[in-house]
Amino acid sequence: MAAPKPRVGLVGVGAMGAPMAACLIKAGYQVSVFDSNAQRAAAFAQEHGLRPAESLVGLAGQSDAVITILPNSAIVEEVLFGQGGMAPALRRGAVVIEMTSGVPSKTVAFSERLARQGVALFDAPVSGGVPRARTGELTIMAGGEQRDIDAAMPILSALGKVIHTGRIGTGHAMKALNNLVSSAGFLIGIEALLIGSRFGIDPATMVDVLNVSTGMNNSTQKKFKQYVLSRKFDSGFAMALMVKDLTIALGIAHENDVNAPFAELCRNLWAGAGAILGPQADHTAVALLSEQLAGTQIGNTAAPS
Amino acid sequence: MAAPKPRVGLVGVGAMGAPMAACLIKAGYQVSVFDSNAQRAAAFAQEHGLRPAESLVGLAGQSDAVITILPNSAIVEEVLFGQGGMAPALRRGAVVIEMTSGVPSKTVAFSERLARQGVALFDAPVSGGVPRARTGELTIMAGGEQRDIDAAMPILSALGKVIHTGRIGTGHAMKALNNLVSSAGFLIGIEALLIGSRFGIDPATMVDVLNVSTGMNNSTQKKFKQYVLSRKFDSGFAMALMVKDLTIALGIAHENDVNAPFAELCRNLWAGAGAILGPQADHTAVALLSEQLAGTQIGNTAAPS
Amino acid sequence: MAAPKPRVGLVGVGAMGAPMAACLIKAGYQVSVFDSNAQRAAAFAQEHGLRPAESLVGLAGQSDAVITILPNSAIVEEVLFGQGGMAPALRRGAVVIEMTSGVPSKTVAFSERLARQGVALFDAPVSGGVPRARTGELTIMAGGEQRDIDAAMPILSALGKVIHTGRIGTGHAMKALNNLVSSAGFLIGIEALLIGSRFGIDPATMVDVLNVSTGMNNSTQKKFKQYVLSRKFDSGFAMALMVKDLTIALGIAHENDVNAPFAELCRNLWAGAGAILGPQADHTAVALLSEQLAGTQIGNTAAPS
Amino acid sequence: MAAPKPRVGLVGVGAMGAPMAACLIKAGYQVSVFDSNAQRAAAFAQEHGLRPAESLVGLAGQSDAVITILPNSAIVEEVLFGQGGMAPALRRGAVVIEMTSGVPSKTVAFSERLARQGVALFDAPVSGGVPRARTGELTIMAGGEQRDIDAAMPILSALGKVIHTGRIGTGHAMKALNNLVSSAGFLIGIEALLIGSRFGIDPATMVDVLNVSTGMNNSTQKKFKQYVLSRKFDSGFAMALMVKDLTIALGIAHENDVNAPFAELCRNLWAGAGAILGPQADHTAVALLSEQLAGTQIGNTAAPS
Ligand SMILES: NC(=O)C1=CN([C@@H]2O[C@H](COP(=O)(O)OP(=O)(O)OC[C@H]3O[C@@H](n4cnc5c(N)ncnc54)[C@H](OP(=O)(O)O)[C@@H]3O)[C@@H](O)[C@H]2O)C=CC1
Ligand SMILES: NC(=O)C1=CN([C@@H]2O[C@H](COP(=O)(O)OP(=O)(O)OC[C@H]3O[C@@H](n4cnc5c(N)ncnc54)[C@H](OP(=O)(O)O)[C@@H]3O)[C@@H](O)[C@H]2O)C=CC1
Ligand SMILES: NC(=O)C1=CN([C@@H]2O[C@H](COP(=O)(O)OP(=O)(O)OC[C@H]3O[C@@H](n4cnc5c(N)ncnc54)[C@H](OP(=O)(O)O)[C@@H]3O)[C@@H](O)[C@H]2O)C=CC1
Repeated sequence: MAAPKPRVGLVGVGAMGAPMAACLIKAGYQVSVFDSNAQRAAAFAQEHGLRPAESLVGLAGQSDAVITILPNSAIVEEVLFGQGGMAPALRRGAVVIEMTSGVPSKTVAFSERLARQGVALFDAPVSGGVPRARTGELTIMAGGEQRDIDAAMPILSALGKVIHTGRIGTGHAMKALNNLVSSAGFLIGIEALLIGSRFGIDPATMVDVLNVSTGMNNSTQKKFKQYVLSRKFDSGFAMALMVKDLTIALGIAHENDVNAPFAELCRNLWAGAGAILGPQADHTAVALLSEQLAGTQIGNTAAPS
Repeated sequence: MAAPKPRVGLVGVGAMGAPMAACLIKAGYQVSVFDSNAQRAAAFAQEHGLRPAESLVGLAGQSDAVITILPNSAIVEEVLFGQGGMAPALRRGAVVIEMTSGVPSKTVAFSERLARQGVALFDAPVSGGVPRARTGELTIMAGGEQRDIDAAMPILSALGKVIHTGRIGTGHAMKALNNLVSSAGFLIGIEALLIGSRFGIDPATMVDVLNVSTGMNNSTQKKFKQYVLSRKFDSGFAMALMVKDLTIALGIAHENDVNAPFAELCRNLWAGAGAILGPQADHTAVALLSEQLAGTQIGNTAAPS
Repeated sequence: MAAPKPRVGLVGVGAMGAPMAACLIKAGYQVSVFDSNAQRAAAFAQEHGLRPAESLVGLAGQSDAVITILPNSAIVEEVLFGQGGMAPALRRGAVVIEMTSGVPSKTVAFSERLARQGVALFDAPVSGGVPRARTGELTIMAGGEQRDIDAAMPILSALGKVIHTGRIGTGHAMKALNNLVSSAGFLIGIEALLIGSRFGIDPATMVDVLNVSTGMNNSTQKKFKQYVLSRKFDSGFAMALMVKDLTIALGIAHENDVNAPFAELCRNLWAGAGAILGPQADHTAVALLSEQLAGTQIGNTAAPS
Repeated sequence: MAAPKPRVGLVGVGAMGAPMAACLIKAGYQVSVFDSNAQRAAAFAQEHGLRPAESLVGLAGQSDAVITILPNSAIVEEVLFGQGGMAPALRRGAVVIEMTSGVPSKTVAFSERLARQGVALFDAPVSGGVPRARTGELTIMAGGEQRDIDAAMPILSALGKVIHTGRIGTGHAMKALNNLVSSAGFLIGIEALLIGSRFGIDPATMVDVLNVSTGMNNSTQKKFKQYVLSRKFDSGFAMALMVKDLTIALGIAHENDVNAPFAELCRNLWAGAGAILGPQADHTAVALLSEQLAGTQIGNTAAPS
């Protein structure tokens, strides 16, 4: 007779957390959920015929594994160690799978703190967005002890494909660094389009050439025509989330005394865009700041009067 | 009876020019070549059983189409308009196909000057490197009048695939802008690897994750493991050529008053690497400057003492 | 009997040119003036009881020395070599004193062109603004042949104090480089005030401390309290003029292959401010862009909501 | 009859601490000293006829006021709260005057921790270097409660002139921000000298012009001729100390979400110089990195070969 499936508690049934919880239910897990937004938790519970956890403590006490998928590490800290937080209720032998896009040094501290009470925590942030959260095809960057990740593999496999990045915190670090590289590819592409536009090259032609040349990157392929040349700016990934990730990436650099001038200016320009355009702006709207600073618009060949 | 093939003169039988001339011969063109390095021209002529042109003037006088594929625009200017240059000898109705990675504003000026004597010139820089020059599979970014490019299409087709980028100079501009985007993707990736290394993530793992995530670009795919992690730094494309292209790209920005802070720092860092490592260094060795400025090495997890 | 004073023609009786011409009249010179704004020239002539020159050619033909004090080098070029320009009318042995804040490489070219007809030209841009133009106490940075500057010294002495900076063009270069250093001192001071404000230090206290410490510069002393903390932004020196000078300074760097990353970002941020705030904005309003990018205001201690 | 003078303990009798302790003795205070370098403490004690404190605890127990003047905040933390640290021995009503160039957020934390046991701490970093430490003419930037600073004023007055910068930590913040502004003035001046040199202007002439124009700052006046043009690079203030101060300044920016792109690149370039030239290099040697990146030297007019 097979061992019973572990009971999973998931905290944060938001844009990502809700479809992830649904995947786990579909895979046969007994899932309970909690959210500070009680209505959202209730709606999810009702839809899937389960009872929402009354409290974080309640959820923690009855779970073998707890998934956190929350806005940021500060909230994870509160949920674990704040007033009414889960830590005291977590059982020896339980595991916390921290899937938030979080701050590595904080994650390391959380892990050390829980280890003292016999609870494992590792980081497992995801990439792929809501569509792949729905289909259980996320990419999961897992940082932590091999044995903890192995033990959680059945749960993780219901959500996506796992890459083990190394020790605790490396998943969070890798996620931030990936977005650093991505955001720089976006920014330099926009500036290239602005320079070329003023010289008189059609922006769509430029994107076509880049895509078959060494200038190719994820933004030239999947974002420029779709969200920028179309002037739609509606990729669905918010400015504030990108700025958060860049801040995490450079925070790692600062804490470890790694001097990275190009990455730093990248962060400064994105953070400037966030400050000017607002955190709710789509991240692709960073192109609007580049246009303002350039004194021209993509597709505009005329010199400024 | 078919019209006779136009006679093609090619100036600059270097790393790129020689295999390109060979492709034209193979396609049935009557080719004559010239090079300031007389031995190189003689060797090529002997190998292909033809007589090298005695002089630029000689070559110009007997060609329907002249290809220039030279180190830079200053040399093109000399070859066209300098003492003993081709311009006076070019025949009304002839075409100059400028395949150097050149400076757009100079190319525009060359074109205007030759137009006065009934000679067309358009820019057609290439990408693909020596391997694709050999197989006739280059990408050719052609900027100029549609009718001139159409007329030259049989010749160009023997060398690769043509994308018409727009008016005169746009081919040169696009080539430089492509390398701007490429060089920035390289630089940010290196800084990300440095930050992640110090945090303790294996560099090869990082490259793997980037390659399946939004951080993907041409350098993460084709350069990092091959030339940087291997410490070989032998891609074959020289630092000086990359710095030249970035200088061209930002020169367009300066001439057109387009303010591009991120691109500018990109150029500054590459130019700094060129100044420190020397023009003959491989362009991938720019990673060595990033390492020095960062105070660490890729793959090195230890903090500086 | 003393030799008669040379006859001086001055082109550009604007904010600077008018009080300078007045100084020369007071010093006993026979002055004629020209301006594309005919009314302005007429008003000046009437006020000082002289006849305005009918044309540039007229002014050139009757002058031993011609002063140009115009918006920029492009206009100087037009006034000298354009249609109806002065060059053909200038007499062998005459001197052109180019007092515009101009582009060194253009000045060198002007000088070479005029030399062929036996006319000397040297650059002599000024610093000190309208107040010192009135009192004849400008600082004049003179670049050119010693003998030309010596010969013009009586004229220059009526306008201010002369520093000989070296060969032709060096006066213009020095003027631009001085403003580069000045503009960077302004910008870094503003960012320091923003950082300190958020931490809770009173801006006026910060300026006081900087002024008695190593952080002291011309902007901390003469601009921050006066134009920024007061929110007046009315120093009288326009954004466009500062951006022009930075563009000249970095243009020298580009033409001479001097890689200057910090100076380049300085120019980019000022040019960005110019693009966003408009050329007519006061240059001290660059602080507004810094505030926007920082996401806070000088004197504002609250974190962004 | 006058109240007896408070007994002062001073921790860190180094280059700054020793002359400061001497000033206090001269002013009539009963001083005891401690240093991790026992020999240095013994030598100072012998020279001034006093007994060195046996331990931190011993010093703390017998002092009304304790001055810390140590390499950095990490060491201050150890000295206060580490094993064998002073905190448990400090008497209710005592004051700690933290004169290290420290990290404001750490200083705030130290202050809060000591407040719980009835001990006050405020920050009072100094500027003026060893010469003014000797003569008791330092500038002291004091951050903390007015009453604490007032109470310590007799002690502080023996060391220099006090400016009250605001709440706890603001002294440390102000000190770092001052050095940020100073270091940027140095860096931009060096780049200007490099650009002007290549154009052919004599560096000493450039410094002279800057010093009488708006480009004037503390470095143009007191450092360029003295330490850079002389190629002596021996100002006595180390690279590592400057980089530490810039790291503190930008650390405040990061903690408070103030985006400061120009300051950030300033820090990156200085930190890069520190990484390449070593922490012991004189801070004025940052000019050597600028020269390397520029591909030229100050005073060198020739273009690179
Ligand atoms: N969206 C995306 O495309 C991707 C997101 N991510 C990362 O995934 C994480 C989650 O993102 P996403 O699902 O989009 O965010 P959402 O805001 O949609 O979901 C977060 C949920 O957590 C709840 N919550 C907030 N505070 C608490 C608390 N103290 N206790 C319990 N619940 C709380 C929120 O409630 P309330 O709304 O009331 O605050 C919300 O329901 C983030 O770290 C993000 O960076 C990663 C990859 C892609
Ligand atoms: N190599 C590559 O992978 C790629 C190169 N390019 C571009 O193609 C162009 C050519 O590059 P590449 O072939 O590598 O360069 P090479 O230096 O190999 O070839 C240039 C040839 O031109 C000759 N030459 C120099 N001056 C004159 C002159 N005044 N008159 C006649 N001939 C002269 C050179 O002779 P000598 O050796 O004596 O100077 C040399 O033989 C460059 O603009 C480059 O940026 C574009 C894509 C890829
Ligand atoms: N203002 C200041 O504080 C300082 C200015 N400078 C420099 O001095 C120079 C002059 O500045 P400023 O006096 O303020 O500028 P103004 O615009 O006040 O004066 C320039 C004058 O030149 C006239 N002009 C323009 N084009 C022509 C032409 N083609 N032929 C004849 N006259 C023409 C203008 O007429 P119109 O108005 O019709 O265009 C105007 O009257 C600039 O290079 C500036 O950078 C240097 C130091 C300080």
